Amino acid sequence: MRIVQRNGPDARRKLFLGSFVHCKALDELEYLHNAAVAVDKEGTIVAVERECDEVRARETVLPRLGWGEDEVEVVKAREGQFFFPGFIDTHLHASQYPNVGIFGKSTLLDWLNTYTFPLEASLADPARARQVYARVIRKTLSHGTTCAAYYATIDVPSTNLLADLCLAAGQRALVGRVCMDQLSPDYYRDATPESSLAYTRASIAHIRTIDPSLSLIRPIITPRFAPSCSLPLLRQLGALAQETRLPIQTHISENPSEIALVQQLFPPSATGAPDNSYASVYDAAGLLTERTILAHAVHLTDAEADLVAARGAKISHCPCSNSALASGAARVRWLLDRGIVCGLGTDMSGGFSPSVLEAARHAVLVSRHVSFTTAGGNSEREKLSVEEVLFLATRGGAEVVGLEGRVGKFEVGMEWDAQLVGLGVVGEDGGVGGEDEGGNVDVFGWESWPDRVAKWVYNGDDRNTKRVWVRGRLVHERR
Amino acid sequence: MRIVQRNGPDARRKLFLGSFVHCKALDELEYLHNAAVAVDKEGTIVAVERECDEVRARETVLPRLGWGEDEVEVVKAREGQFFFPGFIDTHLHASQYPNVGIFGKSTLLDWLNTYTFPLEASLADPARARQVYARVIRKTLSHGTTCAAYYATIDVPSTNLLADLCLAAGQRALVGRVCMDQLSPDYYRDATPESSLAYTRASIAHIRTIDPSLSLIRPIITPRFAPSCSLPLLRQLGALAQETRLPIQTHISENPSEIALVQQLFPPSATGAPDNSYASVYDAAGLLTERTILAHAVHLTDAEADLVAARGAKISHCPCSNSALASGAARVRWLLDRGIVCGLGTDMSGGFSPSVLEAARHAVLVSRHVSFTTAGGNSEREKLSVEEVLFLATRGGAEVVGLEGRVGKFEVGMEWDAQLVGLGVVGEDGGVGGEDEGGNVDVFGWESWPDRVAKWVYNGDDRNTKRVWVRGRLVHERR
Repeated sequence: MRIVQRNGPDARRKLFLGSFVHCKALDELEYLHNAAVAVDKEGTIVAVERECDEVRARETVLPRLGWGEDEVEVVKAREGQFFFPGFIDTHLHASQYPNVGIFGKSTLLDWLNTYTFPLEASLADPARARQVYARVIRKTLSHGTTCAAYYATIDVPSTNLLADLCLAAGQRALVGRVCMDQLSPDYYRDATPESSLAYTRASIAHIRTIDPSLSLIRPIITPRFAPSCSLPLLRQLGALAQETRLPIQTHISENPSEIALVQQLFPPSATGAPDNSYASVYDAAGLLTERTILAHAVHLTDAEADLVAARGAKISHCPCSNSALASGAARVRWLLDRGIVCGLGTDMSGGFSPSVLEAARHAVLVSRHVSFTTAGGNSEREKLSVEEVLFLATRGGAEVVGLEGRVGKFEVGMEWDAQLVGLGVVGEDGGVGGEDEGGNVDVFGWESWPDRVAKWVYNGDDRNTKRVWVRGRLVHERR
Repeated sequence: MRIVQRNGPDARRKLFLGSFVHCKALDELEYLHNAAVAVDKEGTIVAVERECDEVRARETVLPRLGWGEDEVEVVKAREGQFFFPGFIDTHLHASQYPNVGIFGKSTLLDWLNTYTFPLEASLADPARARQVYARVIRKTLSHGTTCAAYYATIDVPSTNLLADLCLAAGQRALVGRVCMDQLSPDYYRDATPESSLAYTRASIAHIRTIDPSLSLIRPIITPRFAPSCSLPLLRQLGALAQETRLPIQTHISENPSEIALVQQLFPPSATGAPDNSYASVYDAAGLLTERTILAHAVHLTDAEADLVAARGAKISHCPCSNSALASGAARVRWLLDRGIVCGLGTDMSGGFSPSVLEAARHAVLVSRHVSFTTAGGNSEREKLSVEEVLFLATRGGAEVVGLEGRVGKFEVGMEWDAQLVGLGVVGEDGGVGGEDEGGNVDVFGWESWPDRVAKWVYNGDDRNTKRVWVRGRLVHERR
């Protein structure tokens, strides 16, 4: 087995043939079999045809598009394989990747000081930053993550390097320089709100230089979380977001001690907010917008959820992290019922896994733990289905990062951010051709398509993600 | 990459060299570096030497053992690799393997009728049984499971086939024909308690034929669970266990509806028990013994836990299953605090994963969910550590299946049931040699050994299990 990740442009027209699966609605997958999807040189889907094999596609679709027979690369899913939209990781710290799985029994605040800040600070070393960032991009692409909302560090050159590396690898990314000017170690914080702003502007300027249309890489304003930002910094970042119309990412209501700290640090007398809730602090600083990604939201009050919904801010649900750091169990159904848009985040290295598919799996499982403590013990309503978590992983995530008009489903006008998924087929003797080919997903042959998708969600890993494309460009391949 | 699983005897003396990690106590791992372990032709460890490289081993250990230089196969762990005891899966249904990951939103009782009974019944077809059982043995071996406590089906020939296949593959196994004579579909149940007993005896007799000393394969008396067994059947199985001194496996207290059903089916007036608790029903039938494996134990009462402890029965904790089927969150610390021995079970296909390592990971995570509802919100005490779940996966499991004197740690007199674990090493450019070699475990080089083990527990999969031995025999290899 070789893994190939390609650099450089790949501007051929493409015709994808076979089975396509994507989310039609929150709780409904659509299965298109024997279908054809045509993608132009810019990576945009220009045709989606049902009941269309290669012969028919050549006879009808290509002429209609005015494409010559030889001007198109044909990519066929094998029997049992399917194309699925690329995953969107709405929250992860690229800089923390080397620490995945290392927690001890810590919770958020001691984990930051013990494990996280020293590692992040060490990435001011360019060689180390290059090693770590190259690895995390390669790793997440291999798991089908076509778009990631990254936190880097406070360091501008290495944050810019992360943006450069994403662009080169072809991964769609939101890249944020981390802003933090208080309650952080001397060796790792911004000296003043003004310097934090200046460095943030420098990083934004760099990304505008390397990708002027911000079509693949986008800067994102990143106050780490309220406790590590002074009120002047929060306000200046709110003003910057207003000025630039750029997206914002931060954390909210992850852990009870953190929430108590926020309430203590930001009294209404200082913020001018009507109360000292976590959401109100951000709102008073102009940071609660429809372009804001709030990670976690485990312990929001009713009033906070209403405020988040009113402002149109989005939530990144990070179940692996919330369980591993013992933060709590986020009530996703309760958020969705309020009309709040939710996506999934790996939150490495609060989360341990680079895989959005694993985050989806844990979203299913954690929702069952939520059900144990709701409505007297086993509330059916709290449970998220396989279909629902796949929606969060694709279309939900797209809306969280502001790309709902461009990626997340297979429709004309959308861009081809996709993965080809293959499962293992068990032979009569109990063997699987190539053995590792299907990873831990074993199909015996009698399963329905929904069963196969469920098997993938429960046991799939990067071995099942055979190829990955972003804007029509092949960015990862296993062969 | 090729996967090789060897059949046939492998009776060479072996000398293992390198790093060895095993559980010294519930919360403590022991790391032996630059060590040597000698294993004789019968698979028994005859020497464990610290600070001993190959030269020293040849100069001192081999002469002391009276082994000639050429009579020994040398197996070296590479730098960063380590030998770890094989995992013990204390609860899984081999017959349900094709259904892993297929649940819908069902819970225990409807899941049995919708998904499980039809599949189990279908394995009366010998070809299908061979395919499924060959696959599950191969799959669990590849995840480092050196010993498994299997439920087969009610069918004797295919249950015997499972035993045959385990013996041929070299996997240590407890194999149980499932007993069930009520509240099950007409197409899949024992006609009478007497026929259930006769079939069980037939299966026991077969295993005594193929492995007379029961050194690798052992029969296990398997009343499915109380609701599917009549009181006469439970009592006759209790008597059979008393007569044969064989182990027993069944389920207990998995799901609230199941518990209510047991209370309704088995009133004290019928059982003669002091109450109608689930544990009392088994106790009254003579099934609660120190050789009994009770799967789940999610909702035990204090009195039931005390009874289980008094009888010396063991618990198989199955966190993946309990979360997926929304059964609940078992309080493992609470069980351990009562002196109850616990191991881990994948419980396929109530559980979705073939991996005991994944069960260990979920045991960590579920213990955090238990902590959320204990002692006002975040009880440190409930949390299981990486070290503790590895204990459950090896030494705990060994005690659960009655093999604590033979496997689970690296000491003279124990048998060599072990796996060689390898992690990925990230190069300066962010690549990993061979790419898939380390699976999802990336080591950057600065991690401590406990950090490396934690990374393995959180992100490891079968790609990290390079070789597996049972009683000194190589039974699985990736290369």
